[in-house]
Amino acid sequence: QWMMLDWKPKRPDVLMDPFGFGRIVQDGLVFRQNFSIRSYEIGADRTASIETLMNHLQETALNHAKSAGLLGDGFGSTPEMCKRNLIWVVTRMHLLVDRYPTWGDVVQVDTWVSSSGKNGMRRDWLLRDCNTGEVLTRASSVWVMMNKQTRRLSKMPDEVRTEIGPYFADIPPVIEEDGRKLSKLDDNTAQYIRTGLTPRWSDLDVNQHVNNVKYIGWILESAPLSILESHELSSMVLEYRRECVRDSMVQSLTAVSGADVGDLMDAGHVECQHLLRLEDGAEVVRGRTEWRPKHAKNFGKLGQVPAESA
Amino acid sequence: QWMMLDWKPKRPDVLMDPFGFGRIVQDGLVFRQNFSIRSYEIGADRTASIETLMNHLQETALNHAKSAGLLGDGFGSTPEMCKRNLIWVVTRMHLLVDRYPTWGDVVQVDTWVSSSGKNGMRRDWLLRDCNTGEVLTRASSVWVMMNKQTRRLSKMPDEVRTEIGPYFADIPPVIEEDGRKLSKLDDNTAQYIRTGLTPRWSDLDVNQHVNNVKYIGWILESAPLSILESHELSSMVLEYRRECVRDSMVQSLTAVSGADVGDLMDAGHVECQHLLRLEDGAEVVRGRTEWRPKHAKNFGKLGQVPAESA
Repeated sequence: QWMMLDWKPKRPDVLMDPFGFGRIVQDGLVFRQNFSIRSYEIGADRTASIETLMNHLQETALNHAKSAGLLGDGFGSTPEMCKRNLIWVVTRMHLLVDRYPTWGDVVQVDTWVSSSGKNGMRRDWLLRDCNTGEVLTRASSVWVMMNKQTRRLSKMPDEVRTEIGPYFADIPPVIEEDGRKLSKLDDNTAQYIRTGLTPRWSDLDVNQHVNNVKYIGWILESAPLSILESHELSSMVLEYRRECVRDSMVQSLTAVSGADVGDLMDAGHVECQHLLRLEDGAEVVRGRTEWRPKHAKNFGKLGQVPAESA
Repeated sequence: QWMMLDWKPKRPDVLMDPFGFGRIVQDGLVFRQNFSIRSYEIGADRTASIETLMNHLQETALNHAKSAGLLGDGFGSTPEMCKRNLIWVVTRMHLLVDRYPTWGDVVQVDTWVSSSGKNGMRRDWLLRDCNTGEVLTRASSVWVMMNKQTRRLSKMPDEVRTEIGPYFADIPPVIEEDGRKLSKLDDNTAQYIRTGLTPRWSDLDVNQHVNNVKYIGWILESAPLSILESHELSSMVLEYRRECVRDSMVQSLTAVSGADVGDLMDAGHVECQHLLRLEDGAEVVRGRTEWRPKHAKNFGKLGQVPAESA
């Protein structure tokens, strides 16, 4: 369905956005920005890390709000939200990765918002290879408003709806809703537990909260190395339930299903359940990840990989 | 002296490099690339982190080698180096930050190489605000060759000198050599020690070594929070002595001089000594950092800071 967003050749695009800040396309409802993947954005596999992709999603969301003139405080809240001390918080993120880009690739990110229920907003993203138009990644997220002082969720005030309503695009979800509930792991159901995780200074955002993207690193801390080595992340669902601050102590729990872990090298697709929790047991993030064997999708390209990475 | 590199207005620059990959300027000896600072590259202070600046240095160094056709293996080694299993390793890095850029700023990075002693190479960087030409950061590094198998340092083979010699620029160092030796901290001389630091999966580069830039995060892990909160890094010297691999357990040591730590809020410039070492005591990185009070340089701009960051 999302193929209705035509892919167009890159050159005119780039010339209309020489600094790479992005711009509005599609009758004003879609924001587009190109990212060239840099050497420090790739990991041990020579491909962009999942954190890199999430960073690009965050950046385009903020630039979209900025270019629409909706950035009251400089970090995502509209003017009417600022008046009421409201901020956006993400409650759910779903990411499907078909192919990871590599160093030097240019990725074209399209993003738009639509309504979600009575008080929420959905933001979708579509990432393509800028040279070929190939779809690399799709992502969808749900946002609600929170009072910055009380930290309680809020209804969407009419004045805010009036501000942002005109920007809601009538585009079907880029990912089919995955109705499966995320289960809550505990000490008995988790197979891997990492404790004592704390934010580094550089993990904090301007509000001294841990940036959403950093949770992914913590989740992967309890994923068995054998999966990271033999498989690549193909899908991730995260439910954000609580914020972490500077002195939070976090525990990361993982359970692997769909494969005997000792046998991972021979395994096909693997599914994991995850939980980040504070030491008092309070849930921070629930997650589910799906993994496919590395090179499963691009086996024919193996000969091009330099010897050093073998 | 480095002012000899004329700063020119940005627009023609950008149009000659529409994808932001960078290009050779200055008679072929200087490589130039622009970076727009992204939301996820700034930290709690709303300015680019020191890791961000170091990432941009790394990226321009690699793109410089690539655009000069000297990237034999895709990661910094020339063709003649590849034949001999030689790789570049950085032994020293010196960074002076006059002003940190913020989200949306475009930074123009110029980099070039010159000879350093008999077997080494110096690489310098000059970072400017692309709009104003203001110098933001200067950095200088020394590189030598290492045999990838034996992990021992190597002389520069004549064939490699022939390859890279024509690219050596006769430009004076961008930073005056700081002759002061870095002292070796130990349990008695260090005031702050953090133990049990291990690489995250995303800290590893394509060789499964910890990327140089990641060491900075570890160094700051043992710097007292009161310094991070009240001061900003103005200068950093790092001496790299040993590599970290995936299962390294690292200890971070810091000693503060020039100020009573209890009194930091009132302190002016502060100097710290640092050491990263493995658990068996082997040195990984020696460092010295200098810090200036925040807003010391741009006090007049305070009124522009949104309330949220106060």
